[in-house]
Amino acid sequence: MTNDHAETTSSGSRVAAAPVPLSEVERFDHETDVLVVGFGCAGAAAAYEAASAGADVLVLERFSGPGGSAAQSGGEVYLGGGTRVQEACGFDDTPEDMYAYLHAALGPHADEEKLRLYCEGSVEHFEWFRARGVPFQESLYGEPGWMAPTKDGLMWLGENAWPYNTLARPVPRGHRPPVEGFAGVLLMEKLAAAAVEAGAQAHTDTRASALVVDASGRVAGVVARRFGEEVRYRARKGVVLTTGGFVDDEEMLADHAPVLLGHGKVSDGGDDGSGIRMACALGAATRRMGSVEAALVVMPEAACRGMLVNALGQRFINEDVYPGLFSHAALHQPAPWWVILDEEGFAAYSERNPGAMPPDHVAESLAELEEELGIPAGALESTVAMYNRYAALGEDPLFHKNPKWLRELKAPFAAVDPRVLARLAENRREATGISGFTLGGLHTTVDGEVLHATRRPIPGLYAAGRASSGIHGEGYVSGTSIGDGTFFGRRAGRASAH
Amino acid sequence: MTNDHAETTSSGSRVAAAPVPLSEVERFDHETDVLVVGFGCAGAAAAYEAASAGADVLVLERFSGPGGSAAQSGGEVYLGGGTRVQEACGFDDTPEDMYAYLHAALGPHADEEKLRLYCEGSVEHFEWFRARGVPFQESLYGEPGWMAPTKDGLMWLGENAWPYNTLARPVPRGHRPPVEGFAGVLLMEKLAAAAVEAGAQAHTDTRASALVVDASGRVAGVVARRFGEEVRYRARKGVVLTTGGFVDDEEMLADHAPVLLGHGKVSDGGDDGSGIRMACALGAATRRMGSVEAALVVMPEAACRGMLVNALGQRFINEDVYPGLFSHAALHQPAPWWVILDEEGFAAYSERNPGAMPPDHVAESLAELEEELGIPAGALESTVAMYNRYAALGEDPLFHKNPKWLRELKAPFAAVDPRVLARLAENRREATGISGFTLGGLHTTVDGEVLHATRRPIPGLYAAGRASSGIHGEGYVSGTSIGDGTFFGRRAGRASAH
Repeated sequence: MTNDHAETTSSGSRVAAAPVPLSEVERFDHETDVLVVGFGCAGAAAAYEAASAGADVLVLERFSGPGGSAAQSGGEVYLGGGTRVQEACGFDDTPEDMYAYLHAALGPHADEEKLRLYCEGSVEHFEWFRARGVPFQESLYGEPGWMAPTKDGLMWLGENAWPYNTLARPVPRGHRPPVEGFAGVLLMEKLAAAAVEAGAQAHTDTRASALVVDASGRVAGVVARRFGEEVRYRARKGVVLTTGGFVDDEEMLADHAPVLLGHGKVSDGGDDGSGIRMACALGAATRRMGSVEAALVVMPEAACRGMLVNALGQRFINEDVYPGLFSHAALHQPAPWWVILDEEGFAAYSERNPGAMPPDHVAESLAELEEELGIPAGALESTVAMYNRYAALGEDPLFHKNPKWLRELKAPFAAVDPRVLARLAENRREATGISGFTLGGLHTTVDGEVLHATRRPIPGLYAAGRASSGIHGEGYVSGTSIGDGTFFGRRAGRASAH
Repeated sequence: MTNDHAETTSSGSRVAAAPVPLSEVERFDHETDVLVVGFGCAGAAAAYEAASAGADVLVLERFSGPGGSAAQSGGEVYLGGGTRVQEACGFDDTPEDMYAYLHAALGPHADEEKLRLYCEGSVEHFEWFRARGVPFQESLYGEPGWMAPTKDGLMWLGENAWPYNTLARPVPRGHRPPVEGFAGVLLMEKLAAAAVEAGAQAHTDTRASALVVDASGRVAGVVARRFGEEVRYRARKGVVLTTGGFVDDEEMLADHAPVLLGHGKVSDGGDDGSGIRMACALGAATRRMGSVEAALVVMPEAACRGMLVNALGQRFINEDVYPGLFSHAALHQPAPWWVILDEEGFAAYSERNPGAMPPDHVAESLAELEEELGIPAGALESTVAMYNRYAALGEDPLFHKNPKWLRELKAPFAAVDPRVLARLAENRREATGISGFTLGGLHTTVDGEVLHATRRPIPGLYAAGRASSGIHGEGYVSGTSIGDGTFFGRRAGRASAH
């Protein structure tokens, strides 16, 4: 082997490496049954199951420790169908109701086969987390929000908002470890430890750069780099790619998910699509490469108490929907976006959220606010008039927001600009207010087998998590990326070990 | 070679065939320098140029004659920068103005490198059409419309609508052969004849099923089927894939462009993505697979004289924009969509369009119309009130429709349902009112070289037209698919011949 299998393009992103023929590999530095590439939530789940099935397992991780993007997340896991947390909180749930909600909320075009399995296996998957030492407090956080500021183990993730509450019995399914705020670190500590306890070995600071392929087309290992040195891994049974999505690779984003160009990135910095590219270089098929998660920096309770409008002053969704869904809708509306509140609404919101920043704009009239925000004169006035006319009757005929949030809005008014907080969070002036990650990836079977462009599995190659296309269609709710990543990571781990 | 290289899946769509090693091909039935796969507009342009450069050229076409989807189209070609038709009609144009318009109208995220070349080469490309015998009458059709019902050689394709008229000097660039209505057949007759006159040979009823690849990874030919028999083609210099997009393949649509699922298909029935899949099976990279053209069955002049609203009674775009753009916007708005007119507007429209069908709904008041259309009560009323308030002043502060179309709308009202005409056109009850085709495809250089997932060209493999990703970002205007297909088809033909 003479040349470098990973190069850097002029724009700085790493190009996918061509597969390396097995016949060209003179010797391997390490040999194992199952090689897992990436030690985030999907990698940990795959490694745990493969090791538990008796396989020798090695996990490669480019960074200095496990965690991946999951460790940076809120740590919610979308689970239901009747978990013991749901039961303890007094909720009856069924796999059918869970399916009906997710089919709509992750849609249109959710993956029905994967979603069916995911919902049917959800109680067992919940118990699997518990058995791995992930605790869940048996109490509900009942407020709207991106994540819970409490240790409660259960929260709503949009199930009680229109139109979802008409499609399935509304039941909360956001399961979370007992951490006030971001719980991803705790979750990943437990999952990584479980994988290691089951026998998986981790090689950190090790970045896979190419797949090794035998003459029959079977994936037989990986070429990687550790501190500038090439390291060759033989995988006797299979390679599982759990390398994450591609939001950190600007060229891949431009090629496949340009809708996120210019927006912020939700990632650990390592989501450069390397696994997707290594597999595509072998002829692997992809699916839904344009699907994305999006988060608009808007406090859901503030939006519920007022309204969310686009650059033209039009409402476009019920504000009490799960915020991931109003964020996704915003991506297809004229930017920028604003939360409009009146004094009473802002006071109620900030009373309950003492750390809330003051509104970015205040005005004595809607005409004044329109001028200040650059919204066409009369547009906001027209929107608020329609809203008020029905709010007085407890109705929202356009979007069916829960009547408990409906109230006539009265001067003076305030506007919250998502870009202000986003600029602080992202530390860049150009922040749009939206950040996101990619949902598309390798086309896999329900057992994680990576399909070739011919739609046949590539022998010896598996993928899970955001390196693959999972249960998602074009929508997203929190907890479904960790949920899908661990659920199908486990299946890929088991399949690769056999 | 023992097995069939193209199979049919359970859903009936053809799967991509794995590449065939050259060493496994015992003998070739035909040998040529350049093999062009698909005899639509891109294929004809590639074949003409390759043959003119002195290469032996063979064109494979799955149907019984040339034409492809271009022959079914209106036949507009987006050309400018100062063509003789533009000059004769009194318009000054520059490549810079053309670029500025297309960069916005085909965007966001138009391909800047391809677009720059396309605009700079546009006058030469216009003369190339003329030299191939495609006539263009030196007169302007000045009305809004999908296509001209006259023989005029020039028409507006949205350049004179907001916001485009603020970004570039508005100049019409829709060039079209002298046919009342659909001109695609005439255009394709001329281009196909030119390719044959230049020396290209065509094999019709011949469907390529797999690429032949030598040990170095170079594409060396194609395996095809003709009336059930396998036919093997050797290409000494290159294979040019001009097989079209993938709107006719439901599985590819579900995988890559689900936004078109359920909508109508704009194609000749052969856009099944076969070329894209054959190349991906070799590790070829794709780009923008989710980008689509969309056509909402709405008569632009009717929309201009009234308003276009979504299912919530909200306007979402200036109705005088190019209809491809309002159609694309509609895809991201709640369906169904409606054209709302008043009596005076409908009368003016139908006077100028004697074949127009009567409106699908008429009502004495907006409240009545809302009820009939299922639009939330008060929503249309609110939209029309805002519209009328400013129309009286000759303004449209939301979307800046040209003042010549602005007028207060007064009872009685009418609504046109795009689904009614679509049901007739598509002959299916479920017609949504939108039909479209795919814009994404193989990732190519400006010379049509197909890039591998490693971002290096695959030797011997070229692509153009809708089998590739061209100048388009996420938007579309008429004439740019034939324009881009022929322009980059010519470049691919020249490159493959050298």
